[in-house]
Amino acid sequence: MDKQSIASEFRGLQDYICQYLEKIDGKSTFQEDTWERSEGGGGRTRTIAHGGIIEKGGVAFSEVFGPVNDVMKRQLGLDGKNFFATGVSIVLHPSNPHVPIIHMNVRYFELDTGECWFGGGIDLTPHYIVPTQAVQFHAGLKEICDRYDSSFYAKFKPWADEYFYIPHREETRGIGGIFFDHLKPNEQHTKEHLLNFCLDLGRSFPVLYEKQVVQGKDLPFTEEHLHWRNLRRGRYVEFNLVNDRGTKFGLLSGGRTESILMSLPSDASWEYCVDIKNGSNESTTLKLLIKGIDWTS
Amino acid sequence: MDKQSIASEFRGLQDYICQYLEKIDGKSTFQEDTWERSEGGGGRTRTIAHGGIIEKGGVAFSEVFGPVNDVMKRQLGLDGKNFFATGVSIVLHPSNPHVPIIHMNVRYFELDTGECWFGGGIDLTPHYIVPTQAVQFHAGLKEICDRYDSSFYAKFKPWADEYFYIPHREETRGIGGIFFDHLKPNEQHTKEHLLNFCLDLGRSFPVLYEKQVVQGKDLPFTEEHLHWRNLRRGRYVEFNLVNDRGTKFGLLSGGRTESILMSLPSDASWEYCVDIKNGSNESTTLKLLIKGIDWTS
Repeated sequence: MDKQSIASEFRGLQDYICQYLEKIDGKSTFQEDTWERSEGGGGRTRTIAHGGIIEKGGVAFSEVFGPVNDVMKRQLGLDGKNFFATGVSIVLHPSNPHVPIIHMNVRYFELDTGECWFGGGIDLTPHYIVPTQAVQFHAGLKEICDRYDSSFYAKFKPWADEYFYIPHREETRGIGGIFFDHLKPNEQHTKEHLLNFCLDLGRSFPVLYEKQVVQGKDLPFTEEHLHWRNLRRGRYVEFNLVNDRGTKFGLLSGGRTESILMSLPSDASWEYCVDIKNGSNESTTLKLLIKGIDWTS
Repeated sequence: MDKQSIASEFRGLQDYICQYLEKIDGKSTFQEDTWERSEGGGGRTRTIAHGGIIEKGGVAFSEVFGPVNDVMKRQLGLDGKNFFATGVSIVLHPSNPHVPIIHMNVRYFELDTGECWFGGGIDLTPHYIVPTQAVQFHAGLKEICDRYDSSFYAKFKPWADEYFYIPHREETRGIGGIFFDHLKPNEQHTKEHLLNFCLDLGRSFPVLYEKQVVQGKDLPFTEEHLHWRNLRRGRYVEFNLVNDRGTKFGLLSGGRTESILMSLPSDASWEYCVDIKNGSNESTTLKLLIKGIDWTS
């Protein structure tokens, strides 16, 4: 299983997910931009806007390689002279406040030292948290994890709680999901096994999201719901620009800005010291934006 | 001139500016929150919203002190065991796209090693750049600088070009202004002289802004102008959350989040690869978002 084959699998995954999402959306289609990286490699960025479900979103594939530069050494602590990285990254911002924002990423990294590893994650950010839907989402993730290693979910769920956290707000971004990094082939798991885990996660992603979409897409909403949606999107922007290591690394290392920031919503709002009524749906949601909730037991 | 007197002058400056801005706005008034910092000191945050001119803005005073912590050592390279810092920070987001966003900050820092310095800056971010107004703004800043040191403007203007720059967009935030830091009392300038420079800058700030406001506030605007305004606000958010050292330091060092992020607009927008028509006002503005324009000659 060489790196080109893995990149090719990820490219196929992007195709599969885009087709599935277009079916879910029912109205808009993805537009494609291909780009090249001067130091080596490039990508295929697909974005969607003004859809039936998705107001703004993107499914990006990239396959980049070249010398390990200073930013990579400092920020990622990389050994080796040359690297190869490929992955698929997704963020979808729906228009209906009752449909959650979703993010998915799978990636593969290889150094000329021979080291290689997989990373990735999925997390869900409902504007309004519905506990039964959070349970479904986490149960779905656990089921996928369990097919590859019965210890994965127990390790990757708290990792997502830590990763998708906004310290300056003392809030998690949403209800979390799973996150993993530096997953290396070993006696227990072959490279193929880990790749299959990533591909399975990627192919399950639109299925899991569809379940969330159908439960929210026809619910009516008011101006107040939209305002709250935009405030929550504001938090999403804060996380991505202040805390997300992937975004920061991409921007600092001279990645393609438009592809990296396709994760931002079409509109976001901020208000000084938002007044949240006790017992409101907004207040209930905020109380659930904490680490350590066990949604699967 | 001890540190308490400087803080007291800055507190008075906040009063002066808020009164002046309420007069300019003509509709809304500032709401005040006072807060305490557990390690020492606190602040007086004043915010305004839904005004006649200002859609969202804040004028914050703070006076904080205590032990130099790890973040300060690492990020600011501070010597000394204890610090004292006081300052006034302002960001105003107007509703009319033809009125520019403005930012102003003056601050004083002191260490128990005996070292002390002033810092600050003003910069203007028009949604649509009007060269005659950019010239007025820079001429006004140069005039204030020249009253204190004929070399200040020539030093502080390019410093602002460097500071208020968004590398991942290859754009300046707006038309710049002045920026300075580590301005220490010496044979040439007493502490009083430097304080007076900062206070003069602060008192001139609403006067300079009023000149900008009157030229834009009655200009009609369309939905397209508002959309462009929100896209420009998106860039403002990117600068503040990704690049602004003050914001990053504040959030990392456990500052009061709501006071730090009062700089964000009520609404901001993002669009993948915005299509800008050649020869449009939007295109003219983008072409002027570069370093090194000499607006005063």
